[in-house]
Amino acid sequence: MINQKPIIAITLGDPAGIGPEIIIKALQEEAIYQVCNPLVIGCEKILQRAYQVVVGQPITFNSMKNPEDAIYKFGIIDVLETGDYEISNLAWGKEQALAGQIAMDAINKSIELGMQSKIDAVTTAPINKVSIKKVGVEQAGHTEIYLDGTESPYVLTMFDCFKMRVFHLSRHISLLNAIAYAKKENILNEVMRIDKELKRLGIVNPLIAVAGLNPHCGEGGLFGDEELREIIPAVEEAKKRRLNVVGPISPDTLFARGKTGEFDAILALFHDQGHIPCKTLDLERSVSVTLGLPFIRCSVDHGTAFDIAGKGIATNTSMVTAITTTVKYANALQKEI
Amino acid sequence: MINQKPIIAITLGDPAGIGPEIIIKALQEEAIYQVCNPLVIGCEKILQRAYQVVVGQPITFNSMKNPEDAIYKFGIIDVLETGDYEISNLAWGKEQALAGQIAMDAINKSIELGMQSKIDAVTTAPINKVSIKKVGVEQAGHTEIYLDGTESPYVLTMFDCFKMRVFHLSRHISLLNAIAYAKKENILNEVMRIDKELKRLGIVNPLIAVAGLNPHCGEGGLFGDEELREIIPAVEEAKKRRLNVVGPISPDTLFARGKTGEFDAILALFHDQGHIPCKTLDLERSVSVTLGLPFIRCSVDHGTAFDIAGKGIATNTSMVTAITTTVKYANALQKEI
Repeated sequence: MINQKPIIAITLGDPAGIGPEIIIKALQEEAIYQVCNPLVIGCEKILQRAYQVVVGQPITFNSMKNPEDAIYKFGIIDVLETGDYEISNLAWGKEQALAGQIAMDAINKSIELGMQSKIDAVTTAPINKVSIKKVGVEQAGHTEIYLDGTESPYVLTMFDCFKMRVFHLSRHISLLNAIAYAKKENILNEVMRIDKELKRLGIVNPLIAVAGLNPHCGEGGLFGDEELREIIPAVEEAKKRRLNVVGPISPDTLFARGKTGEFDAILALFHDQGHIPCKTLDLERSVSVTLGLPFIRCSVDHGTAFDIAGKGIATNTSMVTAITTTVKYANALQKEI
Repeated sequence: MINQKPIIAITLGDPAGIGPEIIIKALQEEAIYQVCNPLVIGCEKILQRAYQVVVGQPITFNSMKNPEDAIYKFGIIDVLETGDYEISNLAWGKEQALAGQIAMDAINKSIELGMQSKIDAVTTAPINKVSIKKVGVEQAGHTEIYLDGTESPYVLTMFDCFKMRVFHLSRHISLLNAIAYAKKENILNEVMRIDKELKRLGIVNPLIAVAGLNPHCGEGGLFGDEELREIIPAVEEAKKRRLNVVGPISPDTLFARGKTGEFDAILALFHDQGHIPCKTLDLERSVSVTLGLPFIRCSVDHGTAFDIAGKGIATNTSMVTAITTTVKYANALQKEI
């Protein structure tokens, strides 16, 4: 490969939200072009509309139908058009079918190009669940859409935060159901998947730390026995299978240790156990990475922010971090091939 | 009062642990003497023993039977003797009855002096649960010992961390039981107590944020209904009683907001929900404050660290932070009187 820089597709996100703004602001950073070839998938008209609310240096757009026509040069934003939309009635900060359609067209195009290996990885801007539902999308969000669209057997959602890679045994279920889901078999399966995906990223014999569920891991069954019944047996079984796993580790000190880089991966046993430390450390720099797909997909970890959309005040920090994280893992995944 | 600096009693902690070392290291900081009059409660012999493993400037000890004999001058460590112990067989890093006795004598003396208003507040060094059990102590830890010893109606455990004061609805119970405990009445009672205690600290109309329990607060009952059934009704009832309370707030963003100083207090609904963000942000500077007693009591938030005790390698960061936090709240509590 002559060009070593990976092609990163950036999906437009919901055009009524801050996605287009923060994409433009991110692509005004020359550092992005030094590490990758960014290709926005969406619609120049939408980007022009967003550009008018963004303060920054002059930019030009290179609009195309075919990804091979991209220029990949700082100062020019390459846009792969997904359709010719009539956007005069498109409102900022509102749930609407047209916005849902434009957002979905970009996602679907990224899946198509990803499956054809015409792009190396995808960074997604935020979408609105209600808007995509208006155009018949059943899935809860990006993760499920990419899972189904690529016909992958599973996906893992990983937070890349400080020196931590935080995985979640469960996500959008109640805390009670999350406890019920923390069974030996589920934990073991998850650890094996994490091991497999990290090896795909070139990490040799990844060290995986499994969180406890109860305070201080229940102190030997004094308060809570899930560690004794489910978690320790899962860790022991994983060790038998020669996985490099430790735990359960007391949840309240696990992430203080993790942020120093002690582990290659941390398995949190429920949504907030992993989300709280990452978002508390740095809300804007917690990037969500989807593993298990044929290509890397990263996402900013915030929503469409309808309340400030179209005002030009959203910062580019999260999008810049999401793109650079996408590049990092896209390069890691490529090395292996 | 001529002397504006509060008298801070510092209990020795378990003499087989790092307590004596980190007390000496902390009292080698002149800044401590600029803000308070520190009085170690314990035993000079133990401190001499610890001093031998600590590198630092020369210090002298002023050993006494009566707190009125303290000098409170930087370079001299004032020690109120709790007994004449035969310590030649005292081992470092080991559970033992003598260590438990010495630790308990200091705690009991601090309660006695606190009840007599001979000291303004207490900073405690870590104790070992097994060692105090060997001398017949039934309570689980400091908090319960001070609760019983002062015959207080309740205690609140607060983490002072960055710009946050984090309270915990429950602590050392299983996660399942913690969910069951997150009932309207319990939450309401806790919010009222937090309000009362913060007012005692001079905070006018304290703004209290209540955490949700489920991911994204359950998204309107989609995953988990504790918000609808218990938490929202508790917050509404508290508002009716004119308390300045907000919530429930999604647990994964609550602490990212809290660390900017947005709230006067945060009520976490279970142990790790509050412990994870504080300890992840700064393990050594999370100080545990006990409110509800006649005097302020603060504690370093780590254990006896038997593995490194007697080696002189434990840093003084946690103890310095614990003492200065004690001073801060002791001064606040005094203002009100």
